[in-house]
Amino acid sequence: MKQAENKSLQRLANLQRQHKGLINLMPLQTGGMLTDVAKEALVEFGDGYSVCDFCQGSLCNVTNPPIREFVQELLPQFLDCEATTITHGAREAKFMVMHSLAQPGDSILVDGNRHYTTVVAAERVGLNIIEVPNSGHPEFKVDVNEYALLIKKHAPKLILLTYPDGNYGNLPDARKLGEITQEYNIPYILNGAYSVGRMPVSMEEIGADFIIGSGHKSMASAGPAGVLGMKKKWEETVLRKSGTYNKKEIELLGCTIRGVPLITLMASFPHVKERVQRWDEQVSKAQWFSAELEKLGFKQLGEKPHRHDLLHFETPVLYEISKRVREKGYFLYKELKERGIWGPQPGMASSIKLSTFAADRQQLQFVIDSFKAILDKYS
Amino acid sequence: MKQAENKSLQRLANLQRQHKGLINLMPLQTGGMLTDVAKEALVEFGDGYSVCDFCQGSLCNVTNPPIREFVQELLPQFLDCEATTITHGAREAKFMVMHSLAQPGDSILVDGNRHYTTVVAAERVGLNIIEVPNSGHPEFKVDVNEYALLIKKHAPKLILLTYPDGNYGNLPDARKLGEITQEYNIPYILNGAYSVGRMPVSMEEIGADFIIGSGHKSMASAGPAGVLGMKKKWEETVLRKSGTYNKKEIELLGCTIRGVPLITLMASFPHVKERVQRWDEQVSKAQWFSAELEKLGFKQLGEKPHRHDLLHFETPVLYEISKRVREKGYFLYKELKERGIWGPQPGMASSIKLSTFAADRQQLQFVIDSFKAILDKYS
Repeated sequence: MKQAENKSLQRLANLQRQHKGLINLMPLQTGGMLTDVAKEALVEFGDGYSVCDFCQGSLCNVTNPPIREFVQELLPQFLDCEATTITHGAREAKFMVMHSLAQPGDSILVDGNRHYTTVVAAERVGLNIIEVPNSGHPEFKVDVNEYALLIKKHAPKLILLTYPDGNYGNLPDARKLGEITQEYNIPYILNGAYSVGRMPVSMEEIGADFIIGSGHKSMASAGPAGVLGMKKKWEETVLRKSGTYNKKEIELLGCTIRGVPLITLMASFPHVKERVQRWDEQVSKAQWFSAELEKLGFKQLGEKPHRHDLLHFETPVLYEISKRVREKGYFLYKELKERGIWGPQPGMASSIKLSTFAADRQQLQFVIDSFKAILDKYS
Repeated sequence: MKQAENKSLQRLANLQRQHKGLINLMPLQTGGMLTDVAKEALVEFGDGYSVCDFCQGSLCNVTNPPIREFVQELLPQFLDCEATTITHGAREAKFMVMHSLAQPGDSILVDGNRHYTTVVAAERVGLNIIEVPNSGHPEFKVDVNEYALLIKKHAPKLILLTYPDGNYGNLPDARKLGEITQEYNIPYILNGAYSVGRMPVSMEEIGADFIIGSGHKSMASAGPAGVLGMKKKWEETVLRKSGTYNKKEIELLGCTIRGVPLITLMASFPHVKERVQRWDEQVSKAQWFSAELEKLGFKQLGEKPHRHDLLHFETPVLYEISKRVREKGYFLYKELKERGIWGPQPGMASSIKLSTFAADRQQLQFVIDSFKAILDKYS
């Protein structure tokens, strides 16, 4: 008992990351890799409540480090919205909005490609979830025109669209949905966990009421961290203050990411703001990579031509190999890791999800060549 | 406009902490300073979703890094409870329990020294807050026997005790309250944000249903991070799973601190587990320091003899100075900072809150001498 505990404690004394330094294609991670500036800030503000040295009662009002400027000026301009706050992440932002605008028993209308946390956040509030189905295999597209019919049928209190979804990297017509939701006057949440910080997104142009971003997924930030932008008219509702403490927002429980993830989000922001301007290069890189992998017998799912770095492939050729090797699906993870590549979920071989966001063309060429070599090795 | 924005962006490129390396007496920070091991882990797992490399569907089940072992074995043993989970912090843990066990309109009975987030979390759920008053100036003690009367009067759904409170560092009779809440069969939350990780605390011995700790306040962790322990019988309620996703806990929205704060919490844990055994030294150090400051004309509020490192002093001698100097209350912050000391809230002089937890006796002697020198300088 005591001996087992000592071993457990020893393991905590030397926590190491196995995938450090590899070419990273892991969809959850490619947009969250820290900039050098953020790495320095991480160490500078590592201790507990370091960001709160000069607290005046509310995290978003701290002027040193310049959190207020970041939240009240830079973020609204970046998201093209009227008010913003910071959150623990996209899921917590979704819950915050749902909990403020809807009551248990109300309905929310979401796309069929929504992240699982959209469902769990709605469950936590007690909402009925209505889904607009996707088009099924192989493109799994969401046609936003289908929202209108379901709005009439279910009178939802909220609308949500995932832009893009994390499974296929599809970008539905968010702007068109903005027109529809305005026509029916229903608040519209755009979940941009995989767009805000990767590509240009304007809440104003899309016509959404809320825009949600994820620091660790797409804003070169340590986890967990998120941003929530909104129209001014929702500020009173979502950022309503405590009746007892007039500086404290109820839905934020006073302050949210009171620590180092916020510092990395801020430190990386200048880079993030700049990198979204180079999104076209990211798209063409993803399209080229996808085409090269299709030559190997992989089949890209989701929209074609693809407009995002999140890629999902059916890989029957890999699956065939996995059925006859000792390591089963893990052979792929092992083979890639030996070549310095990290990406597909360990154990998966029948289909794989990859993101080309963090790797350059030379690295991606090496990945393509590696897949070729692996197929040759087992053929 | 563009120029102002560029300046804002430049400020983000070089975020520095002004209080780095000073003797730290700031009550929010002394228990959250990172261990060297945690500092290394911070860098190792800085990138976004690094802790999720080997996700099997739930953060608390990740085996590499050994999160499962930490949450399912080490933490329950440390908190002396049957089940635990990790949270974004103490406030989020309070909300999670309140939201699971009570309905809007229900009442919660709390101590008059409760943290503001206890009130805000209850407001977020829609609860009525009933307070057991403290004894007032100068000790501000909470007599837990007064809970019984208010239980009979208000039939609360939940009981909460702050142990100790952050204002005075008072340690009420948590064990006695355990007997009372068991007699009336009402779930009892112990908020140990300033005890768990500083001093030995056993949920079992106290007889609470829930125990809450704060990583950044008292467990040598980056912010934000927290722990929540509970009796087994509450697991089904508070950690209930999604109807759609059977690995995802609704109140956690699937996963909570999916990033670097968790890694620092884990990396510091062996040290934290060991340091609570030396709590007696902390108490005698605080008592000595308090007695020395009282010799200078400061008056310690809260319990006497004091049993915690959180100290609150009335400082009329400092206040008199602040009334006649140009910097007003900020003179104290400035004078201390020049001497390499950081602690009292900038601007405050009439009363100051300090924590002796992170400083050794030699450093504290220097602090005492510095206060003497400051008083002499302005006398």
